[in-house]
Amino acid sequence: MMELQKTVRSETIEKANENFMNAFSRGDASILSSLYTEDGQLLPANAGTITGQKEIQGFWQAVMDMGIKAARLETEELEILGSTAIEVGKYTLLGHKDQVADSGKYIVIWKSESGQWKLHRDIWTTSLPATSS
Amino acid sequence: MMELQKTVRSETIEKANENFMNAFSRGDASILSSLYTEDGQLLPANAGTITGQKEIQGFWQAVMDMGIKAARLETEELEILGSTAIEVGKYTLLGHKDQVADSGKYIVIWKSESGQWKLHRDIWTTSLPATSS
Repeated sequence: MMELQKTVRSETIEKANENFMNAFSRGDASILSSLYTEDGQLLPANAGTITGQKEIQGFWQAVMDMGIKAARLETEELEILGSTAIEVGKYTLLGHKDQVADSGKYIVIWKSESGQWKLHRDIWTTSLPATSS
Repeated sequence: MMELQKTVRSETIEKANENFMNAFSRGDASILSSLYTEDGQLLPANAGTITGQKEIQGFWQAVMDMGIKAARLETEELEILGSTAIEVGKYTLLGHKDQVADSGKYIVIWKSESGQWKLHRDIWTTSLPATSS
């Protein structure tokens, strides 16, 4: 029974990741930001911490404006601990004509709020070599 | 009682972070790597995932060889969920004469093993601007 519940809950996170990818492909940074908790945070490289849905929307909008058309997310580990989940995964960002603009790894801390899993802490690092250009 | 236990356990993670900083200052990558779980992982930028104590030792040794003399860690959030803990913090890497070589933010997933907290997943991003040199 516990296992079944866990499976259902991991499917729900899978669905949340699909919502993330779909919002990204539609270029809808507003929907994308609504997938985060109200006090959600991005911890991006080369910038300070981004806090709250409005700032998160602005961040992803800027990424889209740079020509990123889609994000692919692949869960590698998922640990569900009550209303908190820890996900380790791989990401790919695609630009024009599905060209790989970036790829790397991430950790997302999820929180279940009113039965819905939301991204709470989101940090990622590129696996591409440092550019020396 | 629960709260007291939680406080004691958060102090134990604080102690583990002190051990990390001390090992770093001594330039002891072997001790440093022993603070991670056996299947511990680093998710560094511009590289793939580093898995296991031996590879982790090699990574930190390379960082030390680049002239990094010390690491300062500051916990900003700590959530303890049974034998797992989620830490969000700020780091500073210091070089020669305590010059700041890098500073940024991190998420560490800790696992308690035989009563000892060990780093299990370790990811960080620089907050410094991207170098265009």
